[in-house]
Amino acid sequence: MSNPNLRTEFFLGCESLYADAAAVIFGAPFDGTTSYRPGARMGSRTMRAESYALETYSPYLEKDITDYAIHDAGELDLCFGNTEKVLADIESFSDKIISDGKISVMLGGEHLVTLGALRAAAKHYPDLHIIHFDAHTDLRDDYLGEKLSHASVIRRAWDILGDGRIWQFGIRSGDRPEFDWAKEHIYQRKFDLDGLDNCIKQLSDKPVYFTLDLDVLDPSVMPGTGTPEPGGIGFKELLEAVHSFTKLKNVVGFDIVELSPHYDQSGISTAAACKILRELLLSVL
Amino acid sequence: MSNPNLRTEFFLGCESLYADAAAVIFGAPFDGTTSYRPGARMGSRTMRAESYALETYSPYLEKDITDYAIHDAGELDLCFGNTEKVLADIESFSDKIISDGKISVMLGGEHLVTLGALRAAAKHYPDLHIIHFDAHTDLRDDYLGEKLSHASVIRRAWDILGDGRIWQFGIRSGDRPEFDWAKEHIYQRKFDLDGLDNCIKQLSDKPVYFTLDLDVLDPSVMPGTGTPEPGGIGFKELLEAVHSFTKLKNVVGFDIVELSPHYDQSGISTAAACKILRELLLSVL
Amino acid sequence: MSNPNLRTEFFLGCESLYADAAAVIFGAPFDGTTSYRPGARMGSRTMRAESYALETYSPYLEKDITDYAIHDAGELDLCFGNTEKVLADIESFSDKIISDGKISVMLGGEHLVTLGALRAAAKHYPDLHIIHFDAHTDLRDDYLGEKLSHASVIRRAWDILGDGRIWQFGIRSGDRPEFDWAKEHIYQRKFDLDGLDNCIKQLSDKPVYFTLDLDVLDPSVMPGTGTPEPGGIGFKELLEAVHSFTKLKNVVGFDIVELSPHYDQSGISTAAACKILRELLLSVL
Amino acid sequence: MSNPNLRTEFFLGCESLYADAAAVIFGAPFDGTTSYRPGARMGSRTMRAESYALETYSPYLEKDITDYAIHDAGELDLCFGNTEKVLADIESFSDKIISDGKISVMLGGEHLVTLGALRAAAKHYPDLHIIHFDAHTDLRDDYLGEKLSHASVIRRAWDILGDGRIWQFGIRSGDRPEFDWAKEHIYQRKFDLDGLDNCIKQLSDKPVYFTLDLDVLDPSVMPGTGTPEPGGIGFKELLEAVHSFTKLKNVVGFDIVELSPHYDQSGISTAAACKILRELLLSVL
Amino acid sequence: MSNPNLRTEFFLGCESLYADAAAVIFGAPFDGTTSYRPGARMGSRTMRAESYALETYSPYLEKDITDYAIHDAGELDLCFGNTEKVLADIESFSDKIISDGKISVMLGGEHLVTLGALRAAAKHYPDLHIIHFDAHTDLRDDYLGEKLSHASVIRRAWDILGDGRIWQFGIRSGDRPEFDWAKEHIYQRKFDLDGLDNCIKQLSDKPVYFTLDLDVLDPSVMPGTGTPEPGGIGFKELLEAVHSFTKLKNVVGFDIVELSPHYDQSGISTAAACKILRELLLSVL
Amino acid sequence: MSNPNLRTEFFLGCESLYADAAAVIFGAPFDGTTSYRPGARMGSRTMRAESYALETYSPYLEKDITDYAIHDAGELDLCFGNTEKVLADIESFSDKIISDGKISVMLGGEHLVTLGALRAAAKHYPDLHIIHFDAHTDLRDDYLGEKLSHASVIRRAWDILGDGRIWQFGIRSGDRPEFDWAKEHIYQRKFDLDGLDNCIKQLSDKPVYFTLDLDVLDPSVMPGTGTPEPGGIGFKELLEAVHSFTKLKNVVGFDIVELSPHYDQSGISTAAACKILRELLLSVL
Repeated sequence: MSNPNLRTEFFLGCESLYADAAAVIFGAPFDGTTSYRPGARMGSRTMRAESYALETYSPYLEKDITDYAIHDAGELDLCFGNTEKVLADIESFSDKIISDGKISVMLGGEHLVTLGALRAAAKHYPDLHIIHFDAHTDLRDDYLGEKLSHASVIRRAWDILGDGRIWQFGIRSGDRPEFDWAKEHIYQRKFDLDGLDNCIKQLSDKPVYFTLDLDVLDPSVMPGTGTPEPGGIGFKELLEAVHSFTKLKNVVGFDIVELSPHYDQSGISTAAACKILRELLLSVL
Repeated sequence: MSNPNLRTEFFLGCESLYADAAAVIFGAPFDGTTSYRPGARMGSRTMRAESYALETYSPYLEKDITDYAIHDAGELDLCFGNTEKVLADIESFSDKIISDGKISVMLGGEHLVTLGALRAAAKHYPDLHIIHFDAHTDLRDDYLGEKLSHASVIRRAWDILGDGRIWQFGIRSGDRPEFDWAKEHIYQRKFDLDGLDNCIKQLSDKPVYFTLDLDVLDPSVMPGTGTPEPGGIGFKELLEAVHSFTKLKNVVGFDIVELSPHYDQSGISTAAACKILRELLLSVL
Repeated sequence: MSNPNLRTEFFLGCESLYADAAAVIFGAPFDGTTSYRPGARMGSRTMRAESYALETYSPYLEKDITDYAIHDAGELDLCFGNTEKVLADIESFSDKIISDGKISVMLGGEHLVTLGALRAAAKHYPDLHIIHFDAHTDLRDDYLGEKLSHASVIRRAWDILGDGRIWQFGIRSGDRPEFDWAKEHIYQRKFDLDGLDNCIKQLSDKPVYFTLDLDVLDPSVMPGTGTPEPGGIGFKELLEAVHSFTKLKNVVGFDIVELSPHYDQSGISTAAACKILRELLLSVL
Repeated sequence: MSNPNLRTEFFLGCESLYADAAAVIFGAPFDGTTSYRPGARMGSRTMRAESYALETYSPYLEKDITDYAIHDAGELDLCFGNTEKVLADIESFSDKIISDGKISVMLGGEHLVTLGALRAAAKHYPDLHIIHFDAHTDLRDDYLGEKLSHASVIRRAWDILGDGRIWQFGIRSGDRPEFDWAKEHIYQRKFDLDGLDNCIKQLSDKPVYFTLDLDVLDPSVMPGTGTPEPGGIGFKELLEAVHSFTKLKNVVGFDIVELSPHYDQSGISTAAACKILRELLLSVL
Repeated sequence: MSNPNLRTEFFLGCESLYADAAAVIFGAPFDGTTSYRPGARMGSRTMRAESYALETYSPYLEKDITDYAIHDAGELDLCFGNTEKVLADIESFSDKIISDGKISVMLGGEHLVTLGALRAAAKHYPDLHIIHFDAHTDLRDDYLGEKLSHASVIRRAWDILGDGRIWQFGIRSGDRPEFDWAKEHIYQRKFDLDGLDNCIKQLSDKPVYFTLDLDVLDPSVMPGTGTPEPGGIGFKELLEAVHSFTKLKNVVGFDIVELSPHYDQSGISTAAACKILRELLLSVL
Repeated sequence: MSNPNLRTEFFLGCESLYADAAAVIFGAPFDGTTSYRPGARMGSRTMRAESYALETYSPYLEKDITDYAIHDAGELDLCFGNTEKVLADIESFSDKIISDGKISVMLGGEHLVTLGALRAAAKHYPDLHIIHFDAHTDLRDDYLGEKLSHASVIRRAWDILGDGRIWQFGIRSGDRPEFDWAKEHIYQRKFDLDGLDNCIKQLSDKPVYFTLDLDVLDPSVMPGTGTPEPGGIGFKELLEAVHSFTKLKNVVGFDIVELSPHYDQSGISTAAACKILRELLLSVL
């Protein structure tokens, strides 16, 4: 039965078929290594469900989501209790997207899910760089003995990519050894996004993966996250940064992680995450 | 791309095609005449989204949803601000379902949506009877001058069906004229479900439409509703009543209305609504 | 019985009699055309109830509410389900206030209620101008076929007033045709309040109606609203703008709409709305 | 200005003038000695504000609030930080009501406010008896050294009335000495309301003050209270008990205390408190 | 510095030293395999923190916690992301308690933590029986391929204990194969606790481990749990069952799991869990 | 039993013994004079409980809490209903700390608790100055007749210290007489922290007590407070101010008051309070 007036659950009108799409969105609902408050597994589903309140048109970029070919593949059905298998499932799905010449757009889930998508991207692009916005360094070698943890995800990324490939911004929490380690191995900007312009200039022609931990935003803007860290950046600062990604010519994938909607009864965190996703899609496509 | 491990948003595994289905579920997300606390428009979407926490198997009936052909058609895209048009859209969709020989299963929305589905059912079945579970009589001739209101929906049903066709149970709120009027025109059981067995016996061969206003349940069980009325029935009582519907041979449609999930941060109201829907489907199919 | 130590439920000490008042406050508790999250009908009542936490004295303006004659008329008892009748009731009440030479101060409710008050004002002041702060353009010609909708309220205002009379600020959401239409017919400032000084200069002697959709504020400041739009203005920016209204010599009415308190358990949205109302009253009286 | 379509903030249509009233309702918004979770000061205001969702007609008693003369005097403006002064203010107001031959109906606030009203009642009726529904004994001689505490309010009542005048029901929490003391001095029924019929028979002609601590209800029915105690009575049990008060010929006053609405976002606690107040008024008038 | 007026964070006055204790309480804050809503990791900490609102005296059993020697050992510091290691840490701690001749009292956490404590108990008591109260069978052989899951914990228990050793009560959710399997291998009572008396009679002299999944309670009583299942048992039923454990002469350990306090803003779930813990301690000591 | 892997409930690793400590933290859980929304009594306990989500290392100051000797003494066990006794208990405990040459660090509780600690500090340091950050003047001579009130705490401080010793910043609410009085007797900076540098310069060698009412922060950052006042300072402004306290050579004590965590389900208010406490400790030690 054809039924044109029935709403479907795609993110914000991203209704292209996979075959036609330039970018593929998928959810990675996992929060198994979260150490403080769990719930990020609800992030992607909630973004999809609430996105119908958002306009497809961006008055900032004067572009419309419906002018682009984007496929929303839905949610990966990840198991709980086996971290390595979760990462393998994410890597496999992301690998297919990149193999097919499309941009991989992952919605978390906690930050560890980034590692799965990153492994896929790094396989295809050995000269990959990462731009990383976050409140936390995520640079621990292990967390309570575990190598695979949301608190060590960027350290694991470094295991793959090595020195000089990781560009962190907005960092305002971590332990002393993490900050000391960072000085040797990566670019790290504390507290704000200063220096992003230079970073973008240097990476403009290189393959880039962008990972956005939403807790880089101030908790007033993003209360719905597992570990809120006061003193973060404002929404307009993040928006401006995202818009500058139009100068990156080769974004191969990105993710938005750590939305934990149950901690924000008002829904403003989900609204912010959805709008950033719209602006990111319109900036990199 | 075939992708077997992606979750889709159907109610509880109701994934049959429309053409194959014996019953068709649809959402009617409207709460435009709600007089106290709005939000019932979120009911159907939330039930669909949260149903994945529910098992498809009923240990009560020892039946499984996946053994039946049920189509989940999604949400009607209803306008706001034009009540008559909303009812017409609901009637039209419900009419098609009944014309095609299927059971119409509507998820509200506020109680007025029942009128749309009922008009469709009454057109096909002139000898239709209604079984109505509710805390409120819903028998006002008008509410603040409006004929079309959640508070007058059963009175409008009577306009269509006439005396002796409406069987109310669980009623514990209304104004005096409503209760007086009821004595003349309908069967009304106050406070509980006593007498349901007799009702079912009398209607066993007749076409029946069942409308369940979830606020018939006690607010301890169903806090997420617009106008909670303490002193309601328990979940087990409702369950037992629903199971007795297996003796009705010709249920042509039913609805579940007035879930307003935003008032229940714990989610127990949505869980109760989903389970009742499962048991209703398994009882009437 | 005289009982001086009993609290009464007026907004913030606005206890003047109607006959004596220079301004009359009333609530318009309607949200029947809200398309996303309803609840704005609770806005005015909640502002009144919570206003006792606010001081009557403004340290910004060094004025005190109790030095002015303001009548709080309470809540209009609006029906649900008949949009045109709601607007007629609002128009009628607002018309009486303006006819009696008083300033009409309406607390919403959703944004469509503005149309009722505006019809009254435009009848009395054919050269009326509107200053409009909002996140949304509200310029659709219709919304899902309905001409009377919160999403088209300013377009309906234009139907009455015509080109060059509407001054929008802070707009950051809408569809492309709305933004295109705006360029032809109204003054529109996107994202912030720049240009307000010039607007005020041009309108200083003209009759002005001010409509404040609270979602112009950033959701961090105003989470309790139906459709939060990240990237809004700050409270201090809004305060400064409101204070500049002291330069308008003929404000004939204003409204504050779209507070939806149920989405903000913390109460900060209501506190912000109350303070803005205090500052607006002290600025235009 | 006469304005018949403006809603006013009286409890449930209790709009009689003081002079005409048979019963006078007032709020006592104090929770200064609460030891666990404060917030009962919001109880009375919230009941008044939310009561408009309730019908004035009781289908249980087939009576209507609007058939009786009840005055809602609003809220006492009690200070915080001086417990004795608070009790004196309550006593003074309650004394006036009883002196004028009316029933004193107080809405708390925490349970200590009962002491103020009780002092007034005991002065007028030396042979006063108390019926007390509660989860807690409230029989401590002091609480952390303080004689005036919500945890010792019934002990203070005993100081005034002496042995054999206090009838407790539903008690399920206290320390061992409280329970031991009770055996000597008062009638105490643990866990449920059994024996109430006998109590009512014995007190049918005597002056009776009834104090209802809402936490006697099970927390599933009354989550919005400071110290929830699982294992309480159901709403229907309480309703039946309240209806049996029609056999008491001389209820001189009653109170409903310990509603703390902020702990119950769903509002079902307030709805239950309002309905009990309606049924109590209709039972004792 | 000795400081007698400082509160300490022990569960409900359980301040005995480990060496003196007959029972040892510890928290197992893990929810890594939760499939629906996480948060049970907060259960034990919240019980400890909120227990100060509870009396140490039970008017049901007329016993007082302070008359018994109970040690509260605090929270195990479990890692996230490595399920097997978590279980090993729990087993090790529980093993020490049982080796020292004390009762092991574990507060979850999700239900899988039971497996750790059970391994310890089964090692010491080869003829161990389990009494299991739950809404869910927890009998899956695996969950999405994982053998160690909250949904298969009792199946894993059976791997250790074999047929005839597991007594389930209150079960109302699972898939069909789980119910079929149960008929062959364990005692299973659906929906309620009928038959518990007989079970206790049979096990009175045997070593027994009791595991209480709080979702056996109806969600009206226990909204704060990951997967609420309407149709559960009441608090008084559970209380009566727990009190009947006084007839068990050899309870070697027990646990209370699946309290997820973030889903219950009212706190009644935590209050219920604390009271059940008090009554359990007083029943088995 | 030694058990290194059990978590203990100290604030953020402040585990020094009292005897060794340079600073002593204690909670003062009192909110008995709160006039609007109570709950500040939960502030200190919640900060302690949630602090484990915070790193001990400050990337701002490049210092670590674990490098300093700080004792967390837990919560004072204050009575309710006797304000003077509460203040005496606080004064006594604070007096001991200061007598022992340590910095007194008090966590509220409402603002009146400051008076207890201040009395102790003023006794030891007759030339004491106060730096006071707040949204409210707190300068009333009495509040509803009470001299001891959260609304008059700074006026009571002036009673002790006299003119020229109190430096207020961020004030944006009060009544007119308070603002008039302030001009004569104290330094008062409205709306922001401008002038703090000069204040610090003047007080650099003097004994200083710092009292931080968290509602000086904007409600977007600190929704969890009793009386939110929109238009406050940002978190980064507060952080910068706190860091400038490194120039104060003789801070004898400080407090953080008016966190009321129940009004902020997201937890961002508690996170902000904890981080400010960390930065304050690292700035003054």
